[in-house]
Amino acid sequence: MQAVDTLLHARWIVPVEPEGVVLEHHSLVIHEGLILDLLPSDAARQRYTSPQTHELPGHALIPGLINAHTHAAMSLFRGLADDLPLMVWLNEHIWPAEGAWISDEFVFDGTQLAMAEMLRGGTTCFNDMYFFPDETARAASHAGMRAVVGLIMIDFPTAWAANPDEYLSKGLALQDRYRNDPLIRAAFAPHAPYTVSDDPLRRIQTYAEEVDIPIHIHLHETDDEIKGGLEQHGRRPMARLDGLGLLSPRLMAVHMTHLREEEIERAAATGIHVVHCPESNLKLASGFCPAAGLLRAGVNVALGTDGAASNNDLDMLGEMRSAALLGKAVAGDASALPAADALRMATLNGARALGLDEVTGSLVKGKAADVVCVHLGEIESQPVYHPISQLVYATGRHQVSDVWVAGRHLLKERRLTTLDEQDILAKTGRWRERIAASDACAGGKN
Amino acid sequence: MQAVDTLLHARWIVPVEPEGVVLEHHSLVIHEGLILDLLPSDAARQRYTSPQTHELPGHALIPGLINAHTHAAMSLFRGLADDLPLMVWLNEHIWPAEGAWISDEFVFDGTQLAMAEMLRGGTTCFNDMYFFPDETARAASHAGMRAVVGLIMIDFPTAWAANPDEYLSKGLALQDRYRNDPLIRAAFAPHAPYTVSDDPLRRIQTYAEEVDIPIHIHLHETDDEIKGGLEQHGRRPMARLDGLGLLSPRLMAVHMTHLREEEIERAAATGIHVVHCPESNLKLASGFCPAAGLLRAGVNVALGTDGAASNNDLDMLGEMRSAALLGKAVAGDASALPAADALRMATLNGARALGLDEVTGSLVKGKAADVVCVHLGEIESQPVYHPISQLVYATGRHQVSDVWVAGRHLLKERRLTTLDEQDILAKTGRWRERIAASDACAGGKN
Repeated sequence: MQAVDTLLHARWIVPVEPEGVVLEHHSLVIHEGLILDLLPSDAARQRYTSPQTHELPGHALIPGLINAHTHAAMSLFRGLADDLPLMVWLNEHIWPAEGAWISDEFVFDGTQLAMAEMLRGGTTCFNDMYFFPDETARAASHAGMRAVVGLIMIDFPTAWAANPDEYLSKGLALQDRYRNDPLIRAAFAPHAPYTVSDDPLRRIQTYAEEVDIPIHIHLHETDDEIKGGLEQHGRRPMARLDGLGLLSPRLMAVHMTHLREEEIERAAATGIHVVHCPESNLKLASGFCPAAGLLRAGVNVALGTDGAASNNDLDMLGEMRSAALLGKAVAGDASALPAADALRMATLNGARALGLDEVTGSLVKGKAADVVCVHLGEIESQPVYHPISQLVYATGRHQVSDVWVAGRHLLKERRLTTLDEQDILAKTGRWRERIAASDACAGGKN
Repeated sequence: MQAVDTLLHARWIVPVEPEGVVLEHHSLVIHEGLILDLLPSDAARQRYTSPQTHELPGHALIPGLINAHTHAAMSLFRGLADDLPLMVWLNEHIWPAEGAWISDEFVFDGTQLAMAEMLRGGTTCFNDMYFFPDETARAASHAGMRAVVGLIMIDFPTAWAANPDEYLSKGLALQDRYRNDPLIRAAFAPHAPYTVSDDPLRRIQTYAEEVDIPIHIHLHETDDEIKGGLEQHGRRPMARLDGLGLLSPRLMAVHMTHLREEEIERAAATGIHVVHCPESNLKLASGFCPAAGLLRAGVNVALGTDGAASNNDLDMLGEMRSAALLGKAVAGDASALPAADALRMATLNGARALGLDEVTGSLVKGKAADVVCVHLGEIESQPVYHPISQLVYATGRHQVSDVWVAGRHLLKERRLTTLDEQDILAKTGRWRERIAASDACAGGKN
């Protein structure tokens, strides 16, 4: 008998690799942060022993969910202004609120709120883009959560940096600081084609090659962005990035609505990753990402929630469901974007986009033990004919019972172990009072 | 001090009438099944006393949600066959499964499973269409849930009836049996234009006037249905029903995708009710219902989940969110279908469609006490700037803590009081074994 750190005997395990497989009565063996073994429970009971042994007779284990696009700290603005035209929302609410409130403290507290929500919903890793990314990294590191922090770049000055030089130097310093961290990585995060000029984009491309990290950008979010690109640069934003040499497997292009057939082909040919944010696209009426078409063309499509100000949750189980449902409607085909594809988008495809697929994204030996346990025994998920269908179409995030990141038990029977829920609620309440007092729209009647 | 049955002191009350209003620190007074009063909590504490007094400092009270279209018993087929083209799904899975399994016992047990799910998610009333509606009525009556049972009519014979005469006579007998029931009502439920001929439709119209009950029908669900109608009857299905005299405030038309501008105008002019089922329409790739356009034209639009075989949940909070998100995307306008509209669709508009708006659908004095308490204090709903936004965009159904139907406490701190959850789970498990054994697709790998 081999003594190991954690032993999970589960009714079902969905490893995501190989694709579409559901293992019944199997066990996951976790040791020193990694997946040591995955085998039938009968054999596991003969071979392994652990003080942390969990019997999970009505549960499914899945890889930790990867939120491939969010602005975690914006959780403090959740529901501040909804149901408004995009430019009214930005100009009259979000940008003024950011101008008034963004600080190191705001970003740390907001990221803690977001991580509490994400961990409670089975997300183990998030790809962030926001100001004060050093605070995002610090918060994630404290919580033991896996994160890729975005080294934000935007043409205009903010509380974080005054100009492209400062954004870049602060970003590079942050990247260097976490260079050998087991959980925190960095990605360049030029905000969008309409907010970042050619010169900083070229410099980012050069540095990204040099330090070998990904680039994370909003691209083709709205028809207005595309029209603006045509007016200002004489070509569509994706074509402009192509001209600047940015289209490569290093690039995570977020949103990607309003795509032409040749743009889908170019995405596949250049190996860029698309991050689909279905709920944000719906809520802001941005347009429809042809997710099923991109997958069919061979593009790696990951899934993100976007920030809580435009979603308004960081619920990757819900986002999987929305992606699967919307994917069918947009393709006009009820067999498009099946449940197993949605689950892969939320796990392995996310890991690939982030350059982390050697580390996480599926339950295979040797990868980090980023694992989520979902209780399928509740009324809402019964009966279970096909576990993957139930996970995607009939499971709520409150059915996530336990979460491990790199083998560490961060959610234990619904209780967070590294984040203080009461403290987060108290701090959130204080931010709410201050922000509501300053926003003409907030705090009144709906 | 007046002694009353139940006294709810709430942080927020969203009565739905008047529209968009959020009352803070108000109390709902329930007596003899009705809403006796709704007033500031300070005044309520002076005036009323009750052995059933609930302090709800982080909660919102809303009217009970009304699921205006479902096939409750189909919950036993939840996830049996997903991600398939519509006709493969129907021909190879759903219809054979119905042929093999539908019986009085199946419908009673399936309806119990559905009601357990609906009550746990804040639904207090459902509008059903299925075989053996007498069992649906019996199950709802036992559970104390409000229901409108559909007197199903379909051209072909089923286990329930052999021909239109038998469907009609069984339906009329059932309607008569529940004529004076406080919770159970009946509606005629001709399945769809493509499955019911002109003659039974005409007879239903005549009887509906005579006994004064609504008519519940699937209409313009898919483009194929419309094409088929044109081929077989020389006109679009809605025009055919118009010719038969069915377009009136008595009619609940479910789905209504692929609508032309003149059809929206005709819907408004005739006063029919539209029941929008956004998630089912997405999952079956049926098309897009122009929900915001219908509302703008003055049509009463209610909300339904459809059956659990095509959704796959009976989650009206989730359905509100989907309706609000999808409504914006389809309208191409982020300000379309705001949160308050989605909440009204799921409550008062549903009551109107069912002819029950004198009884339920809003929290006003004199109506039945169909009330839902939602806990907004959880991480996922924080911070709260606008309670209606949070309810629609950032609240999961597991946050429903308590439910009352006609003043009776059916969900008490998440525990069902009239339905036996363990018994339902056990029966569901037995049905699952039998059904999976008979369906080639079920029970295997996803």
